[in-house]
Amino acid sequence: MEHTVIFQPSGRRGKFPAGATVLDAARKLGVGIEAICGDNLVCGKCKIKIMDGNFPKEGITSSINHVAQVADKDTKILKDLTARFEAAQEGEERRKIQRKMDKLRAKHENLSDKEREENIRLACGVKVSGDLIVFVPEASRTSEGIVSKKAGKINVKIKPAVSKVYVELPPPSLEDPTGDYERLVAGLERDHKVKGHPAIDYRALQQLPDALRAADWKVTVTLWQREQIIRVEPGKVERNIGLAVDIGTTTVAGYLTDLATGEVLATESMMNPQVRFGEDVMSRITYCMLNGRKGLEELQRTIIDGLNTIAERAAEKVGLAPADISEAVLVGNTAMHHILLGINPEYVGAAPFAPGMHHSFDINAERLGLKILPAGNVHVLPIEAGFVGADNVGCLLADEPHRRDEITLLIDIGTNGELVLGNKEKLISCSTATGPALEGGEIQYGIRATAGAIENVKVEPETLDVLFKVIGDEEWSNGQRNMGAKGICGSAIIDAIAEMFKARVIKKNGQFNKELSHPRVRKNAKGMDEFVVAWKHETALEEDITITIKDVRAIQLAKGALYSGCQIMLRKLGVEKFDRLAIAGAFGSHINKYQAMVIGMYPDCDPETIEFIGNAAGDGARIALVNVDKRREADEIARRVEYVELALEEDFNDRFGEAMQLPHMFDRFPHIESILPVEEAAQEIEV
Amino acid sequence: MEHTVIFQPSGRRGKFPAGATVLDAARKLGVGIEAICGDNLVCGKCKIKIMDGNFPKEGITSSINHVAQVADKDTKILKDLTARFEAAQEGEERRKIQRKMDKLRAKHENLSDKEREENIRLACGVKVSGDLIVFVPEASRTSEGIVSKKAGKINVKIKPAVSKVYVELPPPSLEDPTGDYERLVAGLERDHKVKGHPAIDYRALQQLPDALRAADWKVTVTLWQREQIIRVEPGKVERNIGLAVDIGTTTVAGYLTDLATGEVLATESMMNPQVRFGEDVMSRITYCMLNGRKGLEELQRTIIDGLNTIAERAAEKVGLAPADISEAVLVGNTAMHHILLGINPEYVGAAPFAPGMHHSFDINAERLGLKILPAGNVHVLPIEAGFVGADNVGCLLADEPHRRDEITLLIDIGTNGELVLGNKEKLISCSTATGPALEGGEIQYGIRATAGAIENVKVEPETLDVLFKVIGDEEWSNGQRNMGAKGICGSAIIDAIAEMFKARVIKKNGQFNKELSHPRVRKNAKGMDEFVVAWKHETALEEDITITIKDVRAIQLAKGALYSGCQIMLRKLGVEKFDRLAIAGAFGSHINKYQAMVIGMYPDCDPETIEFIGNAAGDGARIALVNVDKRREADEIARRVEYVELALEEDFNDRFGEAMQLPHMFDRFPHIESILPVEEAAQEIEV
Repeated sequence: MEHTVIFQPSGRRGKFPAGATVLDAARKLGVGIEAICGDNLVCGKCKIKIMDGNFPKEGITSSINHVAQVADKDTKILKDLTARFEAAQEGEERRKIQRKMDKLRAKHENLSDKEREENIRLACGVKVSGDLIVFVPEASRTSEGIVSKKAGKINVKIKPAVSKVYVELPPPSLEDPTGDYERLVAGLERDHKVKGHPAIDYRALQQLPDALRAADWKVTVTLWQREQIIRVEPGKVERNIGLAVDIGTTTVAGYLTDLATGEVLATESMMNPQVRFGEDVMSRITYCMLNGRKGLEELQRTIIDGLNTIAERAAEKVGLAPADISEAVLVGNTAMHHILLGINPEYVGAAPFAPGMHHSFDINAERLGLKILPAGNVHVLPIEAGFVGADNVGCLLADEPHRRDEITLLIDIGTNGELVLGNKEKLISCSTATGPALEGGEIQYGIRATAGAIENVKVEPETLDVLFKVIGDEEWSNGQRNMGAKGICGSAIIDAIAEMFKARVIKKNGQFNKELSHPRVRKNAKGMDEFVVAWKHETALEEDITITIKDVRAIQLAKGALYSGCQIMLRKLGVEKFDRLAIAGAFGSHINKYQAMVIGMYPDCDPETIEFIGNAAGDGARIALVNVDKRREADEIARRVEYVELALEEDFNDRFGEAMQLPHMFDRFPHIESILPVEEAAQEIEV
Repeated sequence: MEHTVIFQPSGRRGKFPAGATVLDAARKLGVGIEAICGDNLVCGKCKIKIMDGNFPKEGITSSINHVAQVADKDTKILKDLTARFEAAQEGEERRKIQRKMDKLRAKHENLSDKEREENIRLACGVKVSGDLIVFVPEASRTSEGIVSKKAGKINVKIKPAVSKVYVELPPPSLEDPTGDYERLVAGLERDHKVKGHPAIDYRALQQLPDALRAADWKVTVTLWQREQIIRVEPGKVERNIGLAVDIGTTTVAGYLTDLATGEVLATESMMNPQVRFGEDVMSRITYCMLNGRKGLEELQRTIIDGLNTIAERAAEKVGLAPADISEAVLVGNTAMHHILLGINPEYVGAAPFAPGMHHSFDINAERLGLKILPAGNVHVLPIEAGFVGADNVGCLLADEPHRRDEITLLIDIGTNGELVLGNKEKLISCSTATGPALEGGEIQYGIRATAGAIENVKVEPETLDVLFKVIGDEEWSNGQRNMGAKGICGSAIIDAIAEMFKARVIKKNGQFNKELSHPRVRKNAKGMDEFVVAWKHETALEEDITITIKDVRAIQLAKGALYSGCQIMLRKLGVEKFDRLAIAGAFGSHINKYQAMVIGMYPDCDPETIEFIGNAAGDGARIALVNVDKRREADEIARRVEYVELALEEDFNDRFGEAMQLPHMFDRFPHIESILPVEEAAQEIEV
């Protein structure tokens, strides 16, 4: 039995079997609905509204009634479960009932009575049992992020794996009927000193006879590592291009690169299309766990489709076909790496977090499904550990801490904070569970860095007036103008909390200052302390945008994890401090390094030594693309970096707890004092 | 516009666009219709009958009228062409018209007036322009041949490319979270001395994490060449199997082999499914030429589907899945080799006959589309020259002339005769265009060695009584019994001509003996001399089965090509004679070596030194499958064997002309005298 599901406002529609969830249907149709928890009914992000009305088909079933029935059914089930729970004895059976009840409650906890009245439901909880019209509210829609993954400058010797050579061959005759491949190999040895009988790829072999005869036995041969023939083109062909791609959990950025010069010919980026399976790594891993190999294959196909779109668009920009791309180098965190290669990521998501493979991996493009040159190679950079992936190796290739005398602390801030500390003598790494808060996740009004997001916040300490800036608008707010603000992104959350702290709205321990009386400082409907950043009339929402005590806690947890990770790393390496701080990641580039220091995101250091290295992961991919020796170097670094498992450190919890203070160990931040007015700083210490 | 075409007696039906030929339709539906000329309207093999009658659909167009219209149209066109031809001046234009006329005439030449009246047409000439019911007469149906490609005994050291090793690993922990692949590699080095970090195939990598955890970190690893991990199975697995396949133009034979013992576990063969695109190599090459890469891909897919069927059936016989086959080794002639790998075979079909590649080729099974172990390797043996293919290399591996002191003449008789002459000092090879006559092709009543084919013939010299045997029947004919004979296969044609010669029905030059008066010796409707082998009442046809002077000529051409090839080879090698004669091929096994000597198929030799080595090509494939060193040996032989292009020998035509004599140089055949009564032999010399 199939039913039609229509999504509004996109208008996409399709038929789905009874029992599929609305979220399933949305995924199949490419309708972007936010979903973080892996269809577990808990995150509450995937709210949709079941519409009725001018449905164009006959035989429409009452969707609303159906949903109401589901809710009623759940209520009944919950009642039954409660009875069974009370009757059950302590033990496995009782725990099982408990889990069922929790799940069911969670499902409804995310919906207020008002929402339920308005037929708002969770897309992962509504099963299709009749024709449906579904409205996806703006808040639930995934939207294209502002991609700031510009290519950085790389300084590397050009020595690509792929080279092109031109050769002219004598045609065969009855006296010399030697085969095409052997004839070509003889020419390559004679004219280009290519030794040892280079192998020929299946697809290149298929091109060979016609290519040789198309231009009178004059051809250009594409060689991989000078040991494999991957393409034969009639006549003389000079252009030799490759593609480096950074597969971020949120954004995928591709750099079409001239392999002869290293120049970036085109940059092409997109939201990671896997986002529709869940925004963060864990929800995608969960999706694989729940759906088995089929789910993994679905996620894999999704990212490969995305890569193909990037290859196609980038090649088109320079007037070429994707099949003209001779090689690709890919980086991504360990989960993205595993999913890309179709390796079950489940074990990366749970202790002891052992990955399927650390080593770099070379795979034929055609076999992977990547529509570059079919005989082309896809090189995937190695990973360091379960939570320190190929993207981090890319950062190391770009920043080269392993070649420096100074001690570098490299922080790549994303959902996880990846830290590398050391110099040419030794490098150690760790991963800290910063959570999504620093990127706006799990923050009440947190959104991604998209148009309409608040990106900077200033709080006037005396008046508590707030000025803010919104992405896509040059001007600061003035308290009157409707800024169309939709929410608050990571950099502005750090701003806001630092400013709130400096204005004494919150105290060192993150608590709200109870002595303050101001309309912006108030309690929300749930009785939670909150601070109004933007008034309703300044927003695109029909409500104020606030920072709650819960949001402050989330940031405290994130920065505490980062800070205590740094501390343990310093101790592990046996040093007091680092000489330079390199902050990688698109998010990193947007934060204000002084504000970050105010909230104590990282240990005290001279702000002058802080360097934002941008999308270093992507830069590293480009380095490995244009210089094949760097791939060996990457494998060596990946092997050399010692992974520190923070959870094994006895004092980790204590350190973490301390580091949650805001700012942590104020007196140890001499550089902060130059930022905060001294008297205020002194005051704060006493709070 | 699509029309329904129904084939009888199979009942297969399908819809086809207007303009498709009936032969196209047959191919799409898998209806086997003989076709040799590559849809050129010349071979006349694909005769079908357009039926009318109880066609179940309304709106039937008058198919018969349509066909008649086509014939009428052709007549008109021919008239026009004739007029234009006569008006045209000598030159390119005139030659173009001539070619068109020839083609048109050829189309109808193959149909008698009676046939045309009966609505019999060539399937390649009838275009679908309305719904059709088509009857395929028995004579036009391709039928499964009697496959006699039994595995021979091979004597080779067992040293397969694929090995299985069992390893137990320590599970990961937070203290040692090393990745699965690195953990496995360490175990392989520790327990099995596998050095140098074996690579892991994409599909094996995907299995790895789950396989390791499925049986408590105890796994069996399948290694290819001890340098690549191609499979990881939970627990201890012993069986290790491979598949050797001989891809003949007519028959494909697969040998499922235990890689630990070399034992053949199952043999599975089938008619080469490409037969429906044309019976011989040239017609398949022509098909590729006419249909471009799409045609080639169609032929390639067809053979790979066939190989998959063989793999599946063979594996099923021993209770396994095709994915349990760890490796495959394939042999075939150069055209089969090229089509299998998707290499354009066009250039192999025309001077200077340069192949796409001589070398052996290794290709990932999944990429080729072969459904054995996805990470498994497919090894294709090397080829010697355009007309001496990987099947011949297989023969050499099996017969090992390159390891012998005696000089071997190895003949592999098929559509082409492939000859190798020499010993461990030197080997030379050539290919002679024997044509299909020796296998029953181009012989009026010639058919493949299938049930109902006459396989042996005796002619009583005094009475000219003929006795014959039919495949599938133990008893000889007695002149009375209906033997159900459908035609005459290769071995019986040789028999018949030798017997006709010994009975003085034909003379040394192949001409019929005009002095003989006997009902069996007569002229056919076209005025051609012929000899009745089976009377109408002994056959399944409604006519006598005869050998015509044209058939005798075809055999003379074939054996002349073979014989003169041998002669030139002997001269090229600088020897008078060979020490042993090895005859390979399924066909070879069926011929009577004395009768073959009587007609002068090969130079005189002691019959005791003649050895039928059976399907040596398949045996060679098995050898290369179970011993990896033999693959290197094969590449070395293929490179070492010097190819002799007979067409370049000045005296080739003269030798060929002489060798057509029957038997050639009678006095140089001392061994014949022991076969023929001396007085007869003496007489014959004088004829």
